[in-house]
Amino acid sequence: MLRDCELSVTAFDWVPGFAQGLVRDLRVRWALEEAGLPYEVDLLAQGTQGDAPNLARQPFGQVPSLKMGDGSMFESGAIVWRIAQESDVLLPPDPAGRDAALSWLFAALNTIEPPISMLAQLDFFSTDTEAAGRLRPEIVAAIRLRLSALERELAGRDWLADRFTVGDLMMGAVLRMVDRDTLGDFPATAAYLDRCIDRPAFRKALAGQLQPFAQNEARYASMMQ
Amino acid sequence: MLRDCELSVTAFDWVPGFAQGLVRDLRVRWALEEAGLPYEVDLLAQGTQGDAPNLARQPFGQVPSLKMGDGSMFESGAIVWRIAQESDVLLPPDPAGRDAALSWLFAALNTIEPPISMLAQLDFFSTDTEAAGRLRPEIVAAIRLRLSALERELAGRDWLADRFTVGDLMMGAVLRMVDRDTLGDFPATAAYLDRCIDRPAFRKALAGQLQPFAQNEARYASMMQ
Repeated sequence: MLRDCELSVTAFDWVPGFAQGLVRDLRVRWALEEAGLPYEVDLLAQGTQGDAPNLARQPFGQVPSLKMGDGSMFESGAIVWRIAQESDVLLPPDPAGRDAALSWLFAALNTIEPPISMLAQLDFFSTDTEAAGRLRPEIVAAIRLRLSALERELAGRDWLADRFTVGDLMMGAVLRMVDRDTLGDFPATAAYLDRCIDRPAFRKALAGQLQPFAQNEARYASMMQ
Repeated sequence: MLRDCELSVTAFDWVPGFAQGLVRDLRVRWALEEAGLPYEVDLLAQGTQGDAPNLARQPFGQVPSLKMGDGSMFESGAIVWRIAQESDVLLPPDPAGRDAALSWLFAALNTIEPPISMLAQLDFFSTDTEAAGRLRPEIVAAIRLRLSALERELAGRDWLADRFTVGDLMMGAVLRMVDRDTLGDFPATAAYLDRCIDRPAFRKALAGQLQPFAQNEARYASMMQ
């Protein structure tokens, strides 16, 4: 049982502005807050994520991983699903409801998020901004196509299933990466996102991620001059 | 229990050559074959995936979905994990081993596959081939970075954990989308992929997906003239 373990999630002590509030430990923190599980945060200094201590917990040198007593997991999707197993806030008791939540968790990560990640690659990471700009419209179209289907699904309902589940947590986390201009064309989806991020557990998780960024901003700014 | 249900997976009756053997129902078929669960296949004619009958099973008009008696699931990752719950071929009995398999399943889908999908977008779906070609090297570099970490992990071992699990199934399915030239620089990973696809359950699943494509090739070819 996770409740009987000391839990500790890895996170960065600072990231650049465009990534603040979007680093994947947020999803794990959110799930832990919804589940009411106390946890520590292991802050990694920027630049140390690929060093041996983090690689021992996360084979790709990423954030987050979760220490659970003697055990450990990585991949935010995996950790969030693991946490959900022990939380009646994140999963309903009936098998059909749990299966639906599992389907939606994967839909968020593997159907909605991929074109959003491609756009982030074009906008933030590409070194050929002219070529990236030319491909932008076809990726935006792919995002809009997926959002149209989601909008149809959300019309007239508060959550993807009968109640909030871990599927909504992940869908909300993913939709936060879509710009509000685009979301404006999908009003049921925009209202749904507002419901997700209005949850106290989300707000606590977000504040937790942002806190060290503010504290360390000046130090990293001076290092980068 | 899935063993007590009639199982039926959706698949296409034909897809273009570059997608043959890669449509995501393959992952579900493979898991069902490993688990020894009998199943039917509901073939969808190309062009009907966005129609009401499929949308009722799959909100995004995709393939696959799985009917399980009265219930239903979508997203191949979700379905494969669900099947694994009832198979000691796909999951070990110990909680730590199950957690590790869950981490690797998500690593395959959310760390290894995203840059591979971006490359497929550039190579097969982009309408601006010149811009796509210019972005290709940075996406290939992202794939190689992830494969380097995987190679380190696979050095000297047969599977990602102590034994084959559903994590290997998904990693193998994802690695099949990397071209053999690139894989040649990662010998432990290439040998690992060979072990994955040499499994009888994989070969049965692949043959099952390909069979209707061969049968319907001539009909679709004549429709496209």
